[in-house]
Formats: sequence, structure tokens, C-alpha cells
Amino acid sequence: MNAHEMMIMFLSLGLLIGFARALGEVARQFGQPALLGEILAGVLLGPTVLGTVAPDMFAGLFPATGPNASFLTGFTNVAIALFLLVAGMEVDLSIVWRQGRATILVGMAGLLFPFAIAFAPAYLWPGLQWRDPAAEPLIFSLFFATSISITSLPFIAKTLMDLGLYRSDMGMIVIAAAIFNDLAGWIIFAVVLGLMQAEHLAGFDIGFTILLTLGFTVGILTVGRWLIHKSLPWLQAHTSWPGGVLSFAMALSLLAAAFTEWIGVHAIFGAFLMGVAIGDSRHLRQSTRTIISEFASFVFAPVFFASIGLQVDFVQSFSLPLVLIVLVIATLGKLPGCYWGARLAGLSRRESWGIGFGMNARGAMQIILGLLALEYNVIGDEMFVALVIMAIITSMASGPAMQRVLHLRTPRHFSDFLTARTFVRAMTAGTAPAAIRELSTPLAAVTGLDCERIAEAVLDREQVMPTGLGNGMAVPHARIRGLSRPAVAVGLSTGGVDFNAPDAQPAHIVLMILIPEPHDGSEVEILADIARTFRNARTREAALGVLTYTEFLALVRSKEPVAP
Amino acid sequence: MNAHEMMIMFLSLGLLIGFARALGEVARQFGQPALLGEILAGVLLGPTVLGTVAPDMFAGLFPATGPNASFLTGFTNVAIALFLLVAGMEVDLSIVWRQGRATILVGMAGLLFPFAIAFAPAYLWPGLQWRDPAAEPLIFSLFFATSISITSLPFIAKTLMDLGLYRSDMGMIVIAAAIFNDLAGWIIFAVVLGLMQAEHLAGFDIGFTILLTLGFTVGILTVGRWLIHKSLPWLQAHTSWPGGVLSFAMALSLLAAAFTEWIGVHAIFGAFLMGVAIGDSRHLRQSTRTIISEFASFVFAPVFFASIGLQVDFVQSFSLPLVLIVLVIATLGKLPGCYWGARLAGLSRRESWGIGFGMNARGAMQIILGLLALEYNVIGDEMFVALVIMAIITSMASGPAMQRVLHLRTPRHFSDFLTARTFVRAMTAGTAPAAIRELSTPLAAVTGLDCERIAEAVLDREQVMPTGLGNGMAVPHARIRGLSRPAVAVGLSTGGVDFNAPDAQPAHIVLMILIPEPHDGSEVEILADIARTFRNARTREAALGVLTYTEFLALVRSKEPVAP
Repeated sequence: MNAHEMMIMFLSLGLLIGFARALGEVARQFGQPALLGEILAGVLLGPTVLGTVAPDMFAGLFPATGPNASFLTGFTNVAIALFLLVAGMEVDLSIVWRQGRATILVGMAGLLFPFAIAFAPAYLWPGLQWRDPAAEPLIFSLFFATSISITSLPFIAKTLMDLGLYRSDMGMIVIAAAIFNDLAGWIIFAVVLGLMQAEHLAGFDIGFTILLTLGFTVGILTVGRWLIHKSLPWLQAHTSWPGGVLSFAMALSLLAAAFTEWIGVHAIFGAFLMGVAIGDSRHLRQSTRTIISEFASFVFAPVFFASIGLQVDFVQSFSLPLVLIVLVIATLGKLPGCYWGARLAGLSRRESWGIGFGMNARGAMQIILGLLALEYNVIGDEMFVALVIMAIITSMASGPAMQRVLHLRTPRHFSDFLTARTFVRAMTAGTAPAAIRELSTPLAAVTGLDCERIAEAVLDREQVMPTGLGNGMAVPHARIRGLSRPAVAVGLSTGGVDFNAPDAQPAHIVLMILIPEPHDGSEVEILADIARTFRNARTREAALGVLTYTEFLALVRSKEPVAP
Repeated sequence: MNAHEMMIMFLSLGLLIGFARALGEVARQFGQPALLGEILAGVLLGPTVLGTVAPDMFAGLFPATGPNASFLTGFTNVAIALFLLVAGMEVDLSIVWRQGRATILVGMAGLLFPFAIAFAPAYLWPGLQWRDPAAEPLIFSLFFATSISITSLPFIAKTLMDLGLYRSDMGMIVIAAAIFNDLAGWIIFAVVLGLMQAEHLAGFDIGFTILLTLGFTVGILTVGRWLIHKSLPWLQAHTSWPGGVLSFAMALSLLAAAFTEWIGVHAIFGAFLMGVAIGDSRHLRQSTRTIISEFASFVFAPVFFASIGLQVDFVQSFSLPLVLIVLVIATLGKLPGCYWGARLAGLSRRESWGIGFGMNARGAMQIILGLLALEYNVIGDEMFVALVIMAIITSMASGPAMQRVLHLRTPRHFSDFLTARTFVRAMTAGTAPAAIRELSTPLAAVTGLDCERIAEAVLDREQVMPTGLGNGMAVPHARIRGLSRPAVAVGLSTGGVDFNAPDAQPAHIVLMILIPEPHDGSEVEILADIARTFRNARTREAALGVLTYTEFLALVRSKEPVAP
């Protein structure tokens, strides 16, 4: 690499991370998964937008060949492997064992049904313009059916994590079935590759690849897992802490990735399995998990998801009929297949639909398979774009759909109901009634209710039982009819206000909470969240030192005071 | 990248991280900096050992050209930039300002003196076989003098961190002077490149490069720093925590790296400066620092340091006379230059020698400059190897030399004096005297002293004042004449032993400590370390649950219990 290529490397990587994370955060603000924003960043920086608006700049930033292209391909592959390491570390094997029957049923039904649904029209309906004219119908149909049938492990892992469902029973069934799916998919794909007479890395025949894959899986999950469990305390006792364990985990998963890539199953599979083995040890400390997982989720994964959008021009090669056909076939096969599998395993209707929507997420595999198929002239650009869009839509849909069928509620934090206008940096009131009146004014402004009515309601509640919590905190609150959602005001008082706390200390942090009546359980949630947030004396002290509403929010979210 | 190249990428990266970290830990065990082991790993995996023993395997793992070579070059450059980001984040600007005069004097003297010492013989003594015959004497001499004069920022940063000196006044003088040095070095090098009529990235003339560099430095450290300080609370309040800040920092430093690479100063400089600006904000939370710094120090930095050894065959191109000449010239110029600079600034003799040895560390710059000089036929392989070995030796020497002249002592932990033999998993004793006798036996075995004498001494001390600390802990101890170093025994007791604690609770964790007489201050250090380690109730509870000595050590070092 010369100096120019080096500069382009830093620039393109910096832009990818920056854009992906920025749009990811925007997506989150609109209640969408961060994933959507991260892929969109790639579409913006890729051929679709930047490549059309400023083709020279795009070609300069993301050259199609040469050292920069190799670097970026390599880096995105390392990135996705490390994200899968983290996804593996989060797997709870005890749930997987317990749900073994459901896993196998969902995995089988979720593979065979969509495979059949996709294979039939692809093979019997060759008139349709969706394959490369030069491609063998059988090979095309096998490829198409395989790529339709495989659930995306990284996509569904991220969605389940975003929903807080990852470590639930249902989350683990979806993950285990997706692994099963993935494995079977790679094995079928190895057969297809063999039919295409394409290069096959280690030159094994299919049977041997299958044998090696199963052997590796079993080996890692038994002997490997045991060895890692035994090694961790030694590493923690005798090497740098926590860096020793960190580099051990990284090196192991990269080597496992190399091994599965070598036997003809994709690298992410090895990294994922190694993650399962490492994460299963109860000796693995939380701080090690945090370091790996934050880095993988917020630096590596966004680069990978953004890189998807860099591959093709999504407008140029967009064919609406083809996208719709692929989307319908994909969903019609997967959703009922997994639903029936889950029902057979005895799960409830609601859970079964949840599993169906979860398994319907496609992604990385489709894109990797699609790229290979493009290369071997099995499909054209339009089909590739249709597969990618299908992957994105099914993945995007799976989160909200699961949320809806499962009646999931995201946990509520008191800060969700706080605004800059209801934050009073320095209260002037010296008594509890005066403090309640002082905080009623901004609450009246944001809720549109009458100020006096709010104050009366809270004062009445205060009469029944004082709301001083002790440790310098008070939480005056009341239920108010006609309120559509909770509202919270924060008042800080240097002098302190007496709220009749058990420890007789004046309150310096006053959180006034209005709850809708009839109430929806938010009262308990919000009070518990307040207690959790201010449990630590350092946080309480730091709260009194904040200068702005933003600093207060930053403190509440990080629960860590700024440096002295 | 095809599947084979992908496999090689994962394999080579996994081996580099694994070997570098393993040998780094071995080096630490022998009291050497981890750096040494990390570079050695590269020598083992590189042309020197693997390339000689198994040339085909070496060529397969680390191909000299093609996608894998591009990936590895790119990855190591990203790695070193991110390590410099962390080094920058640790800089304490207030110390740099306070020590401004010393910084400038040390920086100037530490640049001009070695430059002159190196330039003269290189220019006047052309008969020596140390330059490429085709090279222009002036260009060669300028290159040689530049590469001799520049202190290595990454190497000295890592050494100072290892010694715990990084954030001291002296550490900051060394770092600031090294930055000054580095900057001046890049500017001189830009001149040399201009003389060589080599490509120059943005096509600026030298004056403009200097202007841009100074402008960028000042801009980042004033406006940039202020903007970052203002943005951090907002990011913490409104984006994912702590991932939002993490990706913000990563994206900014990669973009800064791209910018400095573009203006003709190396990428690491931009990443370092951005790190300074980010790290200076008191809004940056400790947990964000920890995630970035652990990942950079234990995943990225080892890959870079190991990659140095991959460049050349250190045996084949080794010329002892040349290595000695380069080493003598390098040290004779730098050491006195920096010493005099520091003395002029009013520092003590001892501190001045410490600064001299610190500034004597060379490294990354020499290697980067050397690679460019090789490419432009200014030097041959032997000179390159001599420069690299000089860099390694001066860097290796700087840590121990600083430790010696500054009379540094590494902090002592009680676990340093504990052995598997003095760890008693389940004490049988029910009273304090019995417990003391029970722990005296293993202590007698490891110290070679008389068991009865130990027990008597500790019991006598116990009579003067009971050593029950409360919270289920006791620390019986005594000073023993004839002991060469402290010795510690740990006894765990489920039933508890009464050590007359202030809270009247029986002790479940008994740490018995023997201190040499005449004593050396280790008593206070060890007792303070014990108090710090077991401050947390969760740690104390977890200690009672450990099954082996290794698990106990792992707990004490991580201060984090295993998962339930």
C-alpha cells in the first residue's frame, strides 16, 4: 500500500463507521433497529447514491479492485466473524439443550418447507427472467432454494438482542434453529458448488466436509468447551487482566474461523461456535464480555452491515416484480414452515408466530451466497439485488412483527419521560409544598394540564405518605386522569427540601412523577428505575454537580460521574 | 478474496494475535516488557525463523503480494493508529502546558544533537558499506540522520504505561518532547522525500505541508477539543451507551489519521492528536476509556508489534559492525542531547537521565522510514535490519534503564507473595491461635524458617492488638528477622474464626503475613492492597466459594466473582 491507498483506507473506514453509527442512532430514535440505519449508510456511500451522484468520488473511496478493495473485504469479514463471536458468547447452552426437540422441529420444518416452495417454481418455471440464461436450471434452482431457506444468524441475533429477547427460551430456540439451518445450508451449498465444479478449498468430497463439520461442532462444544472452562481461571490468575482473556478469545475465534473456512463452511460459523464455547464458561468475567461485545457491536458490526450496501446499485438493478416474487416465496415458505414446526413442538400460537417471524430474517448468508452465484454466472445483478432487498425487508420486519405478536413492551425508564423543559437546575423552594408547586409549572406546560390541579394531586398523595426516600432524594408523584403518558420533572436543590425522609435528611434531588389514570404499571417501573439509577452515592453527588439537562441525562444513562 | 485467501487471512491474524500475546505474557513473567515478546513472535513467524525452517508455509501464511498482503498491511496500520488513539487519550494536557519549557528544550536538544552526530559520519565517511551504492550521499545522510533522531511515540508510550509513569510529570515531558520530535521528523522527511523526487500525496510543497500540519495540530487542540468536550454529554445522553461514544471516537480518529496521511505526515499522528483531544474532556467516562484501551492494547497493538518481525530476515541481513555503529551513533546523540536539554530546563540529574533513556527509545518511525528508504534504494537490507535492531534494543533498554536511574519500584501486591503451597482451602482451626498455627506450617515450609518461631511472633503481635478487620476478615502478621522477602498465607474457613474484630464477626478469610525485619515499607503496602482487594462484599463472598488456588488468584486479580 502506498501513502494514497493508506489515506483512502483510513478515510473509507472512518466514513463507514461514522455514517453507519450515525444513521443507526437516527433509526433508533425513530423506533427502528439500528441495523436499518447501518445498511442505509452503505446504500448512501455505495453505488446507489454516492456512485450515482459523484461516481469519481465513489470509485476513489471504494475502488473495486486493488489493495483497498482487498483490505475492505478482509476487514468486513473479520468484523462479521467477531460479531458472531459475541453472538455465540451470548448463547445459553442450557436453554438450547432443554429446547432440543423444538429446535430440531423448527430447524427442519424451517428449512425443508421453504426449500420445497422455492425449488418448485424455480425449476418448473424457467421462462421467468430471473436467472442467468447460461445457468443450468438444476443448479440455479438448488442455489435459489438454498439461499431462500437460510435464516440469517447475524441479523436475527442482532434483532433479538435489540428486543432483549436473545437469552429467552424463544430467543434460544430461534438461534439454535438458525444454527441448524445455517449448517444444513452450507452443506447443501457445498453440494451445489460441487455440481458447479467450482474450486473447493481443501479438495474434500462432500461427505468428508459434512463429517468434518459435525466433528468440529461436537468437538468444540464438548472437549473445546471443557478445555476453555479449565483455562480461564489460569489465564485470569497469571496473565494481564483483562487483556489476557481478551486476546485468548480473539485468537481462538479467528483460528476457528480459519478452520471452518478451510473445510468449506463459512468462517462466521467457526467464530460463532468458539463464542458459544467461551461464553458458556461461568469463569468468563462480565467485564471481559462487555469489552468484546461493545467493540464488536459498535465498531465491527456496523462496518459489516454498511458494507452490504456497497456491493450493488440498488436503483439500477431494481426489478419490482422480481423483488415481490422473491419476497413472497421467501415468506410463504419460511413463516408457515417454522410456525408449524414450533406448534408441533408444543409451543403456543403466539410463540410460534414469534418464532416464525424471527426465523424469517435473512441476510448475510444470502449476500455471501449471492455474491458467489454472481461470480459463477448462476444469477444476474437483478436477482442479486432482489435477494439483498428480500433479506433486508424480512430482517427489518422480523423485529416489529415479533414485538407485535408477542406483545413485547420495551422497558420504561424515567428519563424517557423527562424533557429539557421539566428539568429545573436550581430549585428555589425551601419546603415540600413549595417544591411541588415549583415543579408543577413546567409539568403543566408540557402536559397541557392545569398547574393547580397537578400540584393538588401530588400534595394530596404526599399527605397520605411522605415520598422522601432518604439519601437526599424524594419522589413526589400522583395519578392524573386524562394524562396520555407519564411525565417526569427533576428539580435539584443545593439547600435541600424536607420531604420527611426516614433518615431525616433533606432532599437534594426531587423527581416529580405524573402517572396516567387508569394506570398501566408504569408507576412501579419508573420508581424502580429511579431507585436503580441513584443507588450509588457517587451518582447522587454527581447529579448535584451537573450544569445542563444534557449533562444530567448523560449521567443518568452512564451512571458514572465525570472525571474530577 | 477467494475462500483460500479468506482462510489464510483468519489463520494469519489468529496466529499473530495468539503468538504475540502468548510471548508477551512470557516476557512479562521474566520481568521484561510485553513488547519484547510481541516483536519476538513476529520474528518467529517471519522470514527469520518460519521462513527459514518452512519457507513454503511462511510464503503461504504471509504472502508478499496479493490480497492477503494488502489486508495485513492495512490492518497493522489501522492497529497502530488505534493504539496511538489510546496513547493520545492518556495524555494529560495540563501537565504538558505546565512543562512547556522543559518539553521544548528536551525536544529541540533531543532532535538537533543526534541529527548532527549522525549526519556528520554518514556524509563524511562514504566508504562504509552502509548505504546503497546508487544513493545520493546527501539524501542518504539526511535520511540516516532523521531516522536516528526520532523518538518512537508508540514504543515509549507503551514503556511508560508499563512502568506506570505515563501520566507523571516526567512521562508527559517525554511524550510531549517525542511528539515535537515526531512532528519535526516528519517535516524533515517530507523535505528528504521532495529531494528524492518521490511521489508526494497531495502534491503540496513543503511549506504548505508544514503550515497544514501546524494548523491541524492547533485546530484539533483548541476548536476540536472544545467541540468534542461539548459533544460528549450530548452523545452520552442521546445515543447508545457506551457504544455511541465508542464509535464516535473511532470514526473521528480514523478520519484524522486519513487527514494527516493526506497532508504527508503519517496517519498515526492524526490518530494520536485526536486521542489527545478526546481524552482531555472530563466528560469522557472511565468505562469508555477502558473498552477502547483494552482492545487497542491487547488486540491491535500486538498485531502491529508482531508485524515488524515479518518484514525481514533478521539473521540473513544481520551485520554486527553495522548494528553496533548504528546503535552507538543513535545512543551517543540522543542520550546526552536529551540529558542536557532536561538539565537546562532545571530538572534534576536523575530525572534528566530518566528522560534521556526514555527519549532514546526508537521504533515505528524508524521502521516506516526504513521501509520507504528501502523502496527508493537509499539503503540496503542490512541497514534496514540494523535500524530495526537499534530500535528494538534502545526501546528494550529504555524501560529497565529508567527503572534503575529513577529507583522505581513496581507496586507490591499481597498475591505476589502467595503460593499454591500457602493457600489453605478449608481451615480446620476454630480459634485464632489455632488458625495462626495452622497457617504457620505452610509458611515455615516455603520460608525455611522454624514453624514454632513464626507462630510465636504472630501470636505476640496478636496479643498487642487483635487483627480482625471486620467483614469476616483477619490479617495476623509479624516482622521476622532473617526473612528475605515477605510471605503470605491464605486460609479460608467456613465456620469462621474469632479474631476480635470490631464488628464481632468471625473471620472467614484469614491472610497471614510475614514481613522481613528490618522492614522496607512492604507491610503498609500489602495491608493496603488487601483492604483494596476485599473492599467489595461480593468479592469477599466469592472468595469463600473458590475451589482452587488458581481460582482464588483469578478472583483477586479480576476483583469480579464468577457468574452464579
